[in-house]
Amino acid sequence: MEDRQVPDIVVGRLPIYLRALTFLKADNREITSSQELGDRLGISSAQIRKDLSHFGEFGKQGTGYEIRYLENNLKEILHVDRMWDVVLVGAGDLGHALASYKGFAGRGFRIAAAFDQDTSKIGNAMPGGLVVEDVAALEGRVSEAGWKIGIIAVPAEAAQAVANTLISAGAMALLNYAPISLIAPSSIRVEQIDPAVHLQHLTYYLG
Amino acid sequence: MEDRQVPDIVVGRLPIYLRALTFLKADNREITSSQELGDRLGISSAQIRKDLSHFGEFGKQGTGYEIRYLENNLKEILHVDRMWDVVLVGAGDLGHALASYKGFAGRGFRIAAAFDQDTSKIGNAMPGGLVVEDVAALEGRVSEAGWKIGIIAVPAEAAQAVANTLISAGAMALLNYAPISLIAPSSIRVEQIDPAVHLQHLTYYLG
Repeated sequence: MEDRQVPDIVVGRLPIYLRALTFLKADNREITSSQELGDRLGISSAQIRKDLSHFGEFGKQGTGYEIRYLENNLKEILHVDRMWDVVLVGAGDLGHALASYKGFAGRGFRIAAAFDQDTSKIGNAMPGGLVVEDVAALEGRVSEAGWKIGIIAVPAEAAQAVANTLISAGAMALLNYAPISLIAPSSIRVEQIDPAVHLQHLTYYLG
Repeated sequence: MEDRQVPDIVVGRLPIYLRALTFLKADNREITSSQELGDRLGISSAQIRKDLSHFGEFGKQGTGYEIRYLENNLKEILHVDRMWDVVLVGAGDLGHALASYKGFAGRGFRIAAAFDQDTSKIGNAMPGGLVVEDVAALEGRVSEAGWKIGIIAVPAEAAQAVANTLISAGAMALLNYAPISLIAPSSIRVEQIDPAVHLQHLTYYLG
């Protein structure tokens, strides 16, 4: 991992805090506390205070956090006070679900282009109005546009090749839905979405 | 949260360790170390040793972990040394992607039934051979079969009602893909899969 001061585990919790704040704001709430956030999220209030203290002093003892202020700060820290173009590779069922996902709005991301290798899909319209492009054009399009983030929504056997193409075109961050462990240089950030991991977290408590 | 000894944050990392061990085993590896696991996962080796120490003594100083032994223990701890039936609600693009997801195999889960409210989908075959059932039958089917785990893959505006139905039918654990914060009794475990959270984790490092 890089020589960074804040543990990656802490960084990974910031978007969860941000989402909780946004939900509270939608309820017209103005102030919250580490206790309330912790109760909602299943994280101890001490952990939340410690995590946030890496980045500054956001709350006051006895007063709590001003929701809008903390939300804005977290957006800046996570660099989602801007809009990022994201490249989607894979225009199957999952790609379509992502293209119509309502959870990106206002959170810093839009899908800028979608690619597939299946000639029966290339040229088709996706939800949201994108037209599926030929994956053969992926490398050129990504490097020309300077896109830094790719979502990999292709079958497991195609995922590593797609990752390699994205990386050689200049992508720095990959969100991988394929059930394989991608190999990538340490300078490239990779996150994996794996429903089995979440289900196993749940079954711990079922026993 | 419940009165449990192991912090939920630690529990949430166990499936990640389990997946890494399974990948190593697939490479015909027999022994690993907290250092190697940590390097692969971006988690400190000290954290991994501390997490595992909640559950027992799995490795030896200087020798490391026997992969198959630790894998089997983690499967038992997470209760995936058995097969769980999972109910899928939502037979749209995401539901289809989940029905054909290759990452459940050997990890403790199979989708036992799929439901939708859309009459044009009810009766259709899903990938894997399930036939979409009418969501009107959801509560009866879940309580009769005793299914404990539901995946919610419906639009945001329908998700809370589906959660309520699953819970009143006896489900104890929900995996929610809808971009809303589900309200549920504290006895019900809820996990959310939210690609925006993962993308924001990535953009922290892009700056």
